[in-house]
Amino acid sequence: MNEHAKVPAAPSEVTTGPIAGSRKVYASPRGRDDLHVPFREIALSDAAEPPVRVYDASGPYTDSTARIDLSAGLAPMRESWIAARGYQEIAGRAVKPEDNGLVPDERLAPHCPAQRGLRAGAPGQLVTQFEFARAGIVTEEMIYVAHRENLARESAIAGAGERLADGESFGAEIPAFVTPEFVRSEVARGRAIIPANINHLELEPMAIGRNFLVKVNANIGNSAVSSGVAEEVEKMVWAIRWGADTVMDLSTGRNIHNIRSWILRNAPVPIGTVPIYQALEKVDGDPLKLDWEVFKDTLIEQAEQGVDYFTIHAGVRLAYVPLTARRVTGIVSRGGSIMARWCLAGHRESFLYEHFGDICDIMRKYDVSFSLGDGLRPGSIADANDAAQFAELETLGELTKVAWDKGCQVMIEGPGHVPMHKIKINMEKQLRECGEAPFYTLGPLTTDIAPGYDHITSGIGAAMIGWFGTAMLCYVTPKEHLGLPDRDDVKTGVITYRIAAHAADLAKGHPAAQIRDDAVSRARFDFRWEDQFNLSLDPDTARKFHDETLPKDAHKVAHFCSMCGPKFCSMKITQDLRAEASAMAGMAEKSREFVEQGGGLYVPAAQ
Amino acid sequence: MNEHAKVPAAPSEVTTGPIAGSRKVYASPRGRDDLHVPFREIALSDAAEPPVRVYDASGPYTDSTARIDLSAGLAPMRESWIAARGYQEIAGRAVKPEDNGLVPDERLAPHCPAQRGLRAGAPGQLVTQFEFARAGIVTEEMIYVAHRENLARESAIAGAGERLADGESFGAEIPAFVTPEFVRSEVARGRAIIPANINHLELEPMAIGRNFLVKVNANIGNSAVSSGVAEEVEKMVWAIRWGADTVMDLSTGRNIHNIRSWILRNAPVPIGTVPIYQALEKVDGDPLKLDWEVFKDTLIEQAEQGVDYFTIHAGVRLAYVPLTARRVTGIVSRGGSIMARWCLAGHRESFLYEHFGDICDIMRKYDVSFSLGDGLRPGSIADANDAAQFAELETLGELTKVAWDKGCQVMIEGPGHVPMHKIKINMEKQLRECGEAPFYTLGPLTTDIAPGYDHITSGIGAAMIGWFGTAMLCYVTPKEHLGLPDRDDVKTGVITYRIAAHAADLAKGHPAAQIRDDAVSRARFDFRWEDQFNLSLDPDTARKFHDETLPKDAHKVAHFCSMCGPKFCSMKITQDLRAEASAMAGMAEKSREFVEQGGGLYVPAAQ
Repeated sequence: MNEHAKVPAAPSEVTTGPIAGSRKVYASPRGRDDLHVPFREIALSDAAEPPVRVYDASGPYTDSTARIDLSAGLAPMRESWIAARGYQEIAGRAVKPEDNGLVPDERLAPHCPAQRGLRAGAPGQLVTQFEFARAGIVTEEMIYVAHRENLARESAIAGAGERLADGESFGAEIPAFVTPEFVRSEVARGRAIIPANINHLELEPMAIGRNFLVKVNANIGNSAVSSGVAEEVEKMVWAIRWGADTVMDLSTGRNIHNIRSWILRNAPVPIGTVPIYQALEKVDGDPLKLDWEVFKDTLIEQAEQGVDYFTIHAGVRLAYVPLTARRVTGIVSRGGSIMARWCLAGHRESFLYEHFGDICDIMRKYDVSFSLGDGLRPGSIADANDAAQFAELETLGELTKVAWDKGCQVMIEGPGHVPMHKIKINMEKQLRECGEAPFYTLGPLTTDIAPGYDHITSGIGAAMIGWFGTAMLCYVTPKEHLGLPDRDDVKTGVITYRIAAHAADLAKGHPAAQIRDDAVSRARFDFRWEDQFNLSLDPDTARKFHDETLPKDAHKVAHFCSMCGPKFCSMKITQDLRAEASAMAGMAEKSREFVEQGGGLYVPAAQ
Repeated sequence: MNEHAKVPAAPSEVTTGPIAGSRKVYASPRGRDDLHVPFREIALSDAAEPPVRVYDASGPYTDSTARIDLSAGLAPMRESWIAARGYQEIAGRAVKPEDNGLVPDERLAPHCPAQRGLRAGAPGQLVTQFEFARAGIVTEEMIYVAHRENLARESAIAGAGERLADGESFGAEIPAFVTPEFVRSEVARGRAIIPANINHLELEPMAIGRNFLVKVNANIGNSAVSSGVAEEVEKMVWAIRWGADTVMDLSTGRNIHNIRSWILRNAPVPIGTVPIYQALEKVDGDPLKLDWEVFKDTLIEQAEQGVDYFTIHAGVRLAYVPLTARRVTGIVSRGGSIMARWCLAGHRESFLYEHFGDICDIMRKYDVSFSLGDGLRPGSIADANDAAQFAELETLGELTKVAWDKGCQVMIEGPGHVPMHKIKINMEKQLRECGEAPFYTLGPLTTDIAPGYDHITSGIGAAMIGWFGTAMLCYVTPKEHLGLPDRDDVKTGVITYRIAAHAADLAKGHPAAQIRDDAVSRARFDFRWEDQFNLSLDPDTARKFHDETLPKDAHKVAHFCSMCGPKFCSMKITQDLRAEASAMAGMAEKSREFVEQGGGLYVPAAQ
């Protein structure tokens, strides 16, 4: 079964260097010179155009001055913040052979040598961002997040004028300017989370919530039949390079403990996992052998490593399993199907549901956020919004309140495969049932007929549900349903989802979203080709596409492109028109009057 | 300027042969054995699964029994229908050197040698489908269209059950079954068009209207700096192979008359053009030299060749031009900018507007449909839904009524670049202003920040506006804003837009749309990999992606894929679960009761 698996080796190299046409900059919130919040700054060729600062989740890898050493891990930026909070240093759970799937020594991937002190919160201590927020305390993470969300708008907003406040947010309450106190209040209300395990010191904090920028998650992970350590670390770095805000490590093969050690020590973004996958590995892949003890042990193992959020499928209750019997595609969530099998085999209630309070207690100690899994999400258009899906969602709402009472941060996972006309009800029901806890959806795919293009079938649904209020979109790659994504697929998936997230931010009326669109549009109209490329989500591809038909450098300043050629360029004609028609300014007012008076109805020329 | 142009040659070969896993079939409406309506039939490997018939715009090129001879053109299927209508045979306008851009002899592309008799309608004769429909006459085209829209549902609908009628159509009136009389009534009301020039005898008729399947247009065409005859004919064949319902030839370089002759004689789909492009070529590219006479001559030239619809930018009135003065991207429609320049230079009302009645008279004679161009469409998010755009739309509504009074078929072009929250108002205003004439939109692009991925930024908007009621979606390729699309780009654009159109059909509740989704989903759940590939919009890509990680044939019947591997496949676990749990059937009812009674609220295990 492992004939395809490669011999594991320590990862040595990953993709580094700035994205074309931009550089990493750091900015500090007023009064907090100790905080260095990263942005990417795109310089433009027109002196009249200010550089455009964009949100940047890529970490030090795109900082040309950073020295990357995967074995040492990233700098533990949060060390001093966490140290000041006075948590107990712990020895930590000893690594067991089954943590790496009992892999024989010659196939054992090395553990990341970077060492960090381990900590756990005690009862009565404030540990989670939710607990701090409820106590009225603004953490460093909250200050950092506030500055990050503002996208350095102090300077940019002046030039952009009144266009910025447009949008329809369906009841979200997006402020003109994000303050640390606003972040605190959103976290305290449970409307946002800052996934930030106290043992993930390398993290650059970020927020997931309906009143913040829409975020994107990328899944990576080896499987029993493919890929190794170095590939997975590179996939993580590659995914955040193109804009993934969080990364889920969904590894299911061997060596997953050690692979995870490399990923976490080198991840500037929150890392999520689905602990049941590893728990299942520990019991030889037989769901019926799962129990609370092995699951609990896995939670502690991963929490100590620094995982920032866990998908927990505690809403797959025994009673809901039969509701899937008539489905076209049954249960398509791996975690959901594992738990369904477990429940049904012994006709027992889910141990995840029964031990949910215990799970909360463990996760609170490290501030691991919940991502309450939708184990019964629809796997086809035919199964969308059915009784099983919505029954589980109601239970997730119930569990959200339990987790909040225990002091935990919570987000809720959502579908899946949903035709366009059934998307909005998912958002509305989630907000209602789950007390506005952040929604985190996979797509949804809006049709089933395009395997090979499911980044697009789902990008449509993702943009829409993001607009309606989903806080984070889990990407889908072109390989969905067909195979394990490679590097190109990861990039395509991330870029597609950045498009969806940005389209949603624009439509919601995020105060800063349109700045970048307008900068691209002005560059386009001015034939500043290099600026247009550099402002793109993917400058390399934009430049390559242009150069395929007009490769000469002279054409980079040409006032036309190969689409129309010089004679037919509408933008050129419009520019000529503007240059000629100084009379236009005076005419504008007359035109408005003409239009307001209803214009002249058509009269044939002959009359 | 022409250094990139290739020496033109007659096209000899195009892509032929069936799409993988399917074959061309023809079906006749009851009582009309003389009509052979094409479908594509996908056979499935499970004997219990009926073959899936899908709409097929690809023409004889995908018929393995067809003999393709580009010089002879496709069989003139409509010859007998048109002949029976008794139109005058005409000599036709003589080709002039300027029709091919005064190209020197050694660079002149050959004319397609296929000869067809030319006809034109006389005053008082019924010529257009609109005129027939208004007179209560059901044409062969209408019968053909009705059968085509039904997708052979007589057989398939029985198995699909009650799932078929779901959807939200925003006031569209989609019937359970399309009859020829329904087609007639839709055409008579102006809510649908059947673009079908009486000189395009090779056409397989199709309908564009809100109560029919959503259609997709692909643009092809050479430009002054790139591509030749053979490439353009192949692009047309390639575009319809992957699902383009109509093709616009937007050529702007030399040889465009002769290129068009090859395209039309070999096109089973409606061909659209923008006559002002060729008119401009005839006056050396100087908009100020344009006049009614050269434009009129071009209309006749192209109508006689058999072009099925013309984009006419008659809504760009002098008074509206100044409304674009403060735009970020001015006027981005080529036709719009040409006419704006013309109007402003002489401070004259548009000759297209002033001669609109004359244009109608010419187009009616051949049944060329109007595609009323949106010359003032927004070219950026910043310019969406502004005064210029909507003023023009109101004029297009006025002109729609004029064209109807003249007996012409009309559709209306729409934007462009529009953020998600401003899309719906475009559809609503178009329906209101234009008396429900079909809307035909370009995208819209929902953000400007992703050049290189504008098939995706616009696919999102296209799916949404298609759902809201747009009848045809004009594709956007990955090269949009950057360069001329090549073969791969054309395919990617078409597949993306087929996704958008299908997602819209599903959401509108088209009675037949979900059949294919359900077939894919069942194949997926049953691990019928070959069926899943073959049912995809692009079987070749689906298969290739699967084979990249699991290339062995044995894996085509494997009950897992490389995404999760054998242990973790949720579908496999669910199947195992179903196999085990015969008790599930009885449990389903109990589960529903449990859910209806509100389920049990969470109680910690300890209690």
